[in-house]
Order: sequence, then C-alpha cells, then structure tokens
Amino acid sequence: MKAVLVIGDGMADRPLKELGWKTPLEVARKPSLNQIAETGICGTMDPISPGLPPGSDTATLALLGYDALKVYSGRGAFEAVGSGVDILPGDVAFRCNFATVDENLVVLDRRAGRISNEDASKLAESLQKIKLARRSDAEFLFKNTIQHRAALVIRGPKLSTAVSDSDPEKVGEKVSEIKPLDESPEAKLTTEIVKELMQKFREVLKQHPVNNERVKRGLPPANIILCRGAGTIPKVKPLPEKYGITAACIAAASLIRGVCKVAEMRLIDVEGATGTPQTDFMAKAKATVQALKTNDFVLLHVKATDVASHDGNIKQKIELIEKIDDMLGYVLNNIDLGSTYLAVTADHTTSSITRNHEGDPVPIAITGPYVRSDDVEEYDERACAKGGLNRIRGRDLMPILMNLIGKTKKFGA
Amino acid sequence: MKAVLVIGDGMADRPLKELGWKTPLEVARKPSLNQIAETGICGTMDPISPGLPPGSDTATLALLGYDALKVYSGRGAFEAVGSGVDILPGDVAFRCNFATVDENLVVLDRRAGRISNEDASKLAESLQKIKLARRSDAEFLFKNTIQHRAALVIRGPKLSTAVSDSDPEKVGEKVSEIKPLDESPEAKLTTEIVKELMQKFREVLKQHPVNNERVKRGLPPANIILCRGAGTIPKVKPLPEKYGITAACIAAASLIRGVCKVAEMRLIDVEGATGTPQTDFMAKAKATVQALKTNDFVLLHVKATDVASHDGNIKQKIELIEKIDDMLGYVLNNIDLGSTYLAVTADHTTSSITRNHEGDPVPIAITGPYVRSDDVEEYDERACAKGGLNRIRGRDLMPILMNLIGKTKKFGA
Repeated sequence: MKAVLVIGDGMADRPLKELGWKTPLEVARKPSLNQIAETGICGTMDPISPGLPPGSDTATLALLGYDALKVYSGRGAFEAVGSGVDILPGDVAFRCNFATVDENLVVLDRRAGRISNEDASKLAESLQKIKLARRSDAEFLFKNTIQHRAALVIRGPKLSTAVSDSDPEKVGEKVSEIKPLDESPEAKLTTEIVKELMQKFREVLKQHPVNNERVKRGLPPANIILCRGAGTIPKVKPLPEKYGITAACIAAASLIRGVCKVAEMRLIDVEGATGTPQTDFMAKAKATVQALKTNDFVLLHVKATDVASHDGNIKQKIELIEKIDDMLGYVLNNIDLGSTYLAVTADHTTSSITRNHEGDPVPIAITGPYVRSDDVEEYDERACAKGGLNRIRGRDLMPILMNLIGKTKKFGA
Repeated sequence: MKAVLVIGDGMADRPLKELGWKTPLEVARKPSLNQIAETGICGTMDPISPGLPPGSDTATLALLGYDALKVYSGRGAFEAVGSGVDILPGDVAFRCNFATVDENLVVLDRRAGRISNEDASKLAESLQKIKLARRSDAEFLFKNTIQHRAALVIRGPKLSTAVSDSDPEKVGEKVSEIKPLDESPEAKLTTEIVKELMQKFREVLKQHPVNNERVKRGLPPANIILCRGAGTIPKVKPLPEKYGITAACIAAASLIRGVCKVAEMRLIDVEGATGTPQTDFMAKAKATVQALKTNDFVLLHVKATDVASHDGNIKQKIELIEKIDDMLGYVLNNIDLGSTYLAVTADHTTSSITRNHEGDPVPIAITGPYVRSDDVEEYDERACAKGGLNRIRGRDLMPILMNLIGKTKKFGA
C-alpha cells in the first residue's frame, strides 16, 4: 500500500461576491477532484488549529505529522535549505524578497513585479560579491530561488534568530528598521550584520544595469532586498524513520522543498516545475506516478494557486484549480487504485479578497481501498465539511494515511 | 440518573469487498442498536487519536476518561490483575500466550488452536511448580486466564519493565530472544529470570501428557509460552473518586477486568461469560440490569467480536454483532429509559482483512433523556459519523456521560 498527498497551496478560499458567493473551488470545473471526493472520505481540516492562519511552512510541517507549534524555528532556514543552500546547524537564515521602493523607502511592490528568474539571478550574483566588515568571523550566502524569492544565510559563531524583519509585508508602508528582539550580544551582532548587508545590497541594486534595463522596459526595478523570518534548521525526527517509509517530495517552491528536506524526504526535480502559474502540471503528474514506484509516500505540492490568491486574481485561481484537476486526472488514471491512497487538500485558505492566508479550515478528501466513503460528491470547502472525516487537524492527516497503508504501530495490547 | 457503557471489542471494521464494500455492522440485523442510534445522539470517535491503532487496554483506559498516553504502563499488569493474580506495586507482569512452535522455534500457531481452558489449566498447574534458580529473592506466578491467554508475574526487589517480548506476534516467524531494553541492572536481572522461566516452561510443555493427548486428537500442542507487554500497575485516580460515582464492570476478558480493577470499579462475575464467541450474552444483559440497581455506572464489555475479527471470520463477526444486539434488546427493555443513559461503542476498529487493530475511528451512540438526538437512524461506522456528536476522542466520552448523569463539576463561576 502506498499514499500520495496532493497539496494545492492556498487553494481553499472564502465565498466571493464576484462568484455569486461561491468559492473558486466551488465554481471550477473539476471532474477528478469530484471523483476523489465521491469515491473517498471527506472532511474539513484545520491545518494547525481553528482560526489560526498558517504559513505554508508551518502547515506543511503539520501535514507531515509534526507539531509545528513546537518544532517551528522560522521560515528562513526552510527557504534556504529548499533552494539548495547548504545550511548548517547554527546558521541563521532569512527569507528575502526582491522588492521595489521609492526614494523614501516606501514599498511600491513587494515582489518587484514578480521579477524573472533571469534578472534575479544576475542581481543575486552581484550581491554575493559584497564584502562584510570584519567584526566577527561571520560570512553570508545570498541566493535567489523563484522569481522575487531569495534566501540569505548568515554563518558564524554566536548568532541569533532574535532579529526583526525589514519587510513590512504591506505595500505603501516604509521598510522596517531591523532590530534585535532580545538583549543578547548574539542578537545585537546578527542585527548589525543584517543591517550592514541590507544597506550594501541597496547601494548595489540602486545603480545595477539590470534595474536600469527594467525601468527602460517599464518594469519595476528590484531596488531593495526585504528580509524576514530569521530561522535555524529545526530538529525533527526524519519522516522515513518516524513511519518506516520511503518518502519523496515533488515541489518547486523552495520553502516546501526545505521543509521536506529537513524531514529527510527525497527531493525530486521536475523539469518545467517552476512554482509559478506557468508550471508544468503534467510533468509533475508524471513525476508523481514515477516516484510512487520507488516510494511509499509522495507529497505533490502546487504553489500556483497561492500565487493567484495573493494577487487577488480570481479568474486565474479558478483556471489553476482546473489545471490541478487535469493533473489529478493523469494521476488517477496511472496509479493502481487498488493499492494506493490519494489525499487532496490545501495547506491553508488564502482569501482572494484580503489576499492573505486566513485561518479558515481547508477541504480534505482521501480515496483508496477500504476507506469508509461517504455521501460527499464534490470537492470543495463546503461539500467536504459534510463528510465522514468530520473536522480533523493537519497533524492528524499523516497518522490517518499511515494507518491506511499499514505503517502505524499499535499502542497497547 | 445512571449510565451504561457498552463496548463491543473490535466491533468496528472497514468496508469489505466480501460484503459489497459494507462493514459487518452495516450488514448485520440490529434493531436495538438502530433504536439507540435513532433515539440518541451519534458520532465518530478516535479511541486515542486519529490514525493510532489502540490496544484494548489503552482504549479502555481512554474510554474510562484517563489519558492513556500518560498513564499506560504495559499490558502485562492489567492481564494479571484481571485474571485474579494478586499484583503488588513493583511486580513486573507479562501477558502470555500458550502457542505452538516447530523444532526450530518457528511459530506455527500463536494461540495453540485457541486451547481450551481445561487443557490450559492443567498445563499452567505444572508450570507453576517450576523452581527458579536462586539469583535473587525473585519468585513468579503463572496463571492461565481464557483459552490461550495467561499472565506471568515476577515479584522481587529491583525488577524492571524494560524487557523485550519473546512473542514475535506473527505466525511463521521465530520466537524472539528476550533482551533488556536499557542498561540497568534491574532490566538485566528481570531478563535473566524471564529467559530462565521461558526455557524451563518449554521443557515441561514439550513432554507434557496434555500435549501428547492433544497431538493424538489432532490438535496443535501448546508447546511454548510466548510473553509480551512487560508492565506494572499504573497509578490512576480511582473512577469512583474521580466522578463521585459507584461503578461496576461486567467483562470476562482479563485485560479489561484488569483495567477496571485498577480503576477501582467493582468486578462482577457472570456465570457463562467467557470472553469467547460462545459467551452467554443474555447472562451479561441480566447482570447489567441487576448491576444498575446498585451502581451509577456500569461498563459492559464483549470480547467476542474482536476474536472473530482476528480470525478473519466475517460471518461470525456479523452473527456476534446480532447477538450483541439481542443483548442490548434485553437491556433496553429492562432499564428505566427515563433515568438511564445507554452508550454503545467499540474500543477500536479491527479489520477482518488485515486481522489487526486499526486506527480508524469507531461509531458512538448515546441514548437517554435530554440528549440532543440527531437524524442518524442506523448504528454503524458511516451512519454514526453524520451524527450530532461529530468527531470526539475516547477520553471525551466519560465526561460527556458523567455530565448527562449530573456528576461533573462546574469549572469557573
């Protein structure tokens, strides 16, 4: 017995006036999602706990069966690990954005027009060449990942994650001053290093040819780096050890790849999988079918739906759900449904109106042999909430799947 | 107000191909169970937590309102207490099986053909006569309980429960070597004692007249004792004290009797109640009605359904559910439904296919005055999951029942 867990990032939504008070999932054409709901057992799921808006990192930790509230140690390290930066215990890592500010450091675009990977790479290369003032043995790594996303890692003795963000996380607000979050000398030192880097980055970016070119092409210049989520690598029991399984991850988003790598899952690279709405859904579907041949458990993650939600692009979100549906159609047609469980959920609700992660629960459906299928016939937030799983938490999902594939141990006699 | 909690051991199942993808509960004739569902409030319940396959001991602890994850201290002590062995704090007890092995110690039958109580008693009598080598002041008690089940208690100073099982829990596998599970001298000593006993037991059993007779009759000889679940008595707040109630237990299975005795419930012996599929269901029904006259709370446990599931005997499981239904019919007709709550559940799901305890939830229905009855009209895994209780945990049940009978205290003002 094997299991696939499909996560549509931010796929769940709230009812929208623009859709006659329906959600994107409710109006999308989705025969495969409906097939999974109809043949399976459905429910509503709080990724972490009711009302709490999770990040994609904390939600994915929970969906993999970890107690995110206990093990989470900041976003930065996951992003860095997931983008292939070699991160060591003690390193402090930040999630960064290429962004656009005006001369008063007021944020005009938190994603510098979702800058292309190509432009971001050239800029990152220049930033990595900067020299840090010699105040300790600290050094840094800066790496762009997908579009506007990047990772910054500070390495050295005596660092701390108690450092505030420079990213105000809102357009129209001024870049925040980076401050130590406690009185320790480590927090003070780390703050100084990050502040110095941010200043030097800004100088380089302001006059960089790539940005001059972007302005000529009418694109917002990536004239600042915003950082947030100082973190270290958390210590978790590796997934293969925890459940006695082989496990693989198919995801393009660095953050998710990072979580899966920390859980010691195999990261499978898929050509054309980009973590953007232009990602190659079919390539991911094929990779999943392939990965199932050599793994007990495969996590298939699609970032695109969250991107559309953060942009408030309802039409695109619906189209992307339909592409996820096509992807699932391929998976359903190419796996052995007599020996494979297929679960589909979202890591969180992203409202296309507030454009933020929200604490509303997400739909969950599990199909496969021996599930207690229920009356639910459609896959969406409201239909699934009537299902036989009732209301579960993200952390419950992995034990439920592992129980179905026979990988749980009896407690007691 | 009084309450009866009826537990059908392993009564819940998964949908079975053999039953047109229905469960034994779904196909059984069960007017009384349905009456309870129809007049009551229903739900789906995780005995411990979603996906976790419980033992009958941990599940019963949870159903009595205890935090099994915290208080559980191994099966052996419950089994010993429940079979009437006087067990003291510090004693280390094991659950044992009379089993059949070949000359290479490969297990052929983990239950020696579900050996009769009569044969097992004779063998146990011989085993109790063995003398332990004098390496400490340790002594032992060996007692058969029902069929192939037995308890072994080691008494003496400086013992430990950190001792592995000899029972491989699988037919076709070799008997496991007993090992200390930590470095302590106590674990080493206990291991030595158990190993010595297992060896001496084997010598006696190999050439025992009862076994020679069994072989002649074409029955598997009980030529070895397998042990598992080293445990001590856990410290829990007695149930009568916890809720201010008088409480009784009607169960034949030693393991359940042990849990109830540790909770300081009254153990009621019922003539003809055997813990087997041949148990006298009506005698148990009558004893329950009787016990309600002098107790606020009565636990009525039926082992038989679990036995059929472990044997993969679907037809028998259905018949036994129907017998439980008849038993409940008597109870319903002979208690005052205006002042008595009746709850029916299973302690865990036992799959008739995997023949193991599984982590799927179990149905729960509670009838009685003032319950918020729902639309559910049938008592089974899927119908109950649509009920008004939604999804609860085993530990929630006792507070819910105690609240209904007015035995909970207000928290706050």
